Formats: sequence, structure tokens, C-alpha cells
Amino acid sequence: MHYPNNSKKEFNTLNSLTNLKKSYSNRGMNLESAINSSNEFYLENDRALIYKKPTPIGIVDVSYANHKKTIEKAYFKEQSTLDYNGLYRGKYIEFDAKETLNKTSFPLSNIHEHQTRQIRNVIKHGGIVFLIIRMNNINYLLTGEDYISYIDNENRKSISYNYIKEKAHIIKEAYRPQLDYLTIVDKIYFKGE
Amino acid sequence: MHYPNNSKKEFNTLNSLTNLKKSYSNRGMNLESAINSSNEFYLENDRALIYKKPTPIGIVDVSYANHKKTIEKAYFKEQSTLDYNGLYRGKYIEFDAKETLNKTSFPLSNIHEHQTRQIRNVIKHGGIVFLIIRMNNINYLLTGEDYISYIDNENRKSISYNYIKEKAHIIKEAYRPQLDYLTIVDKIYFKGE
Repeated sequence: MHYPNNSKKEFNTLNSLTNLKKSYSNRGMNLESAINSSNEFYLENDRALIYKKPTPIGIVDVSYANHKKTIEKAYFKEQSTLDYNGLYRGKYIEFDAKETLNKTSFPLSNIHEHQTRQIRNVIKHGGIVFLIIRMNNINYLLTGEDYISYIDNENRKSISYNYIKEKAHIIKEAYRPQLDYLTIVDKIYFKGE
Repeated sequence: MHYPNNSKKEFNTLNSLTNLKKSYSNRGMNLESAINSSNEFYLENDRALIYKKPTPIGIVDVSYANHKKTIEKAYFKEQSTLDYNGLYRGKYIEFDAKETLNKTSFPLSNIHEHQTRQIRNVIKHGGIVFLIIRMNNINYLLTGEDYISYIDNENRKSISYNYIKEKAHIIKEAYRPQLDYLTIVDKIYFKGE
């Protein structure tokens, strides 16, 4: 989990090599895997308890063979909440991850109505809520508050890239955790603590 | 969602009738459904955002027919966390529900090792964590702290009913919400607020 103290140089070299490799292999790499591996890192290092919720399914048919219950038919259902939630520094945290290939604006069709409702609810009940948006190969953290403010004040079907650049916070990619979004959460929600 | 203000009497009568009916039909009624319906009530009344996590599955086979993705084979996986989590009065809350038909002790085999680890973790990170235990037709809320204290100090394979009676808090059954566990959470975790 931790890098040995006496091999910092080796680690730095390894890190540069990894970054080099990443710059070639990482284009369009799955945002979800990057977040999942970061959450595992946070968990292993006792920094936060954040999990992706399993996708809800509706089970149509199950079988029992060799004392094992197997699902023989099922369909996907919609999550009522955002995909990730958990506990960080004593606070409730919830977020979702969205990617777009669009370069000039983020289409709001990516965010379902029940997700917007959930964002409003988490704000109302005093939790931390945000979106991680990958756009133009950059990962942005847009707070729930800034998202809702846009929705409530603009009558558009997308968020302009300018708004994202102006309001959202860039999450730098690194080795481990790959997407250190909690450092951004610290800056926004735990200022001066 | 809300009872009309001018029909309090009608509601009380209805409530008594429901309780009467319940006292006959409700024995052994599914604890999970009682909690789910209580969570829906809390959500509708804007009191808390608490959800049961979907059961995680491992997908073996999917098919696409009529533009619909259908799971053709899958198996159940173990949840890494407790089953319920969410946000209440600005605090992170997580819990699990356990039933036993055993009258004198609660077998610890009902609680998996990773669940005990999760309980310790939520305490460490400053969240609210507990178990709802249904035993002898009574619903008890046992705090994570009291559960861990038992585990760490007793070398037994079950929790004696006496310990539960002494430490846990009774959750009364009612009409709506059916299991008002948040009122107990108020008393334990938000004393004097």
C-alpha cells in the first residue's frame, strides 16, 4: 500500500514511466475504473469509505442447482440515487461520474431528472454532492450547488464548456490514487479545517 | 403524503384499525419490507435520504433483443458494506437489519466478518452505524459501538438476549412509518439538539 521510504527515487522514476505510459494508453480510459481504483486506494489507506452502488436489477427467474442460487433472467433498473456514496471526514458524500466526447458543451441529457432531484435533496439535507465530468480529456469536479444554479438560471439543454471551465475544479490525474478528487473536496468543503 | 389537517380523528380511527389488523397479520412480517416502507415515508416527508443498496451481482451472460439489454445469467455477490445507507440531519448513516427466531440469543453467524469491519470503519470515520435486530417479535436498535464492545469483550458465538435487552433501544411499530427508527436515532445521536 505505502511506498517504502527509502525508495523514493525509484518510485519517482516508476511514476514518470507510468505517466509516460499513461499518456499513450490512457486516452478515453474508463472514468468509472479510475474512480473505482481511487476509492479502493482511499479505503486501503483509511482516508474515506466510498463505494459505487451496485446496479439495481429486477429478477425475473432464478434457479437452484448444487445449493447455489443462480439468476436465469433479469433486467436492469434505474438507480434512484447517484452512483457513488459514502463517508468522508465525518460527512456524507455522494456523486456521479459523467463523460462526454462533446468538446464545447456538456449535454444535460446525460443527467436524468431523478439524479437532479437527488442532488437537490442531498444539498437540502446537508451532504456533500457533486459531479465528476470528463470532458476534453480533463476531469472536472462541479459542485451540486453550481450545477443546480446553472439548471435554475439557464434555459439550455447543455452546460457550456466555458461555465465548466469557470466554475468546476480540475482533478489532476496521478499514479495512486489515479483521480484524487478528495483533495479537491478538501479545498471546497473543508476550507481552513 | 400528508394527512389532511381536518381529519385527524378519521386518521386516528384508521390508525387503530390498522394496528388491530396488524397485530394479527403482522407476526413475522418481513423486517426488510417494514424498513423499506419506512424509508419511503422518510423520503416522501423530506425527513431523510436513506436507501437499501441493490444486491451486487456478477453478470455471466447478457443478450440484446429489441434494443433491450437482458441479463441471461448472473450470480449473487456479497455486499461489501451494510445494506442501508444515507443522509440524516447532515450526518452519514449506515445500518443493517437482522432477524432471528432464536429466543435467548442472537447468533453472531448472522453478521459477516466484512460487516463487522465496516461497522468499525464507519465509527472510525465519524458516521452513525447500527443494527436493527428483530428478536422475540420486538425490533431493537443496537448501536455499532455497543455491538463492537460486545464482540471485543466477549468470546462467544452469540449475543445474549439479556445484553440486547439491556443495551439496545426498542423501536415501536406504528402505522406510518412502520418502524420509526429515526426517532431512536434522534435520542441516541442528537441528544439535546
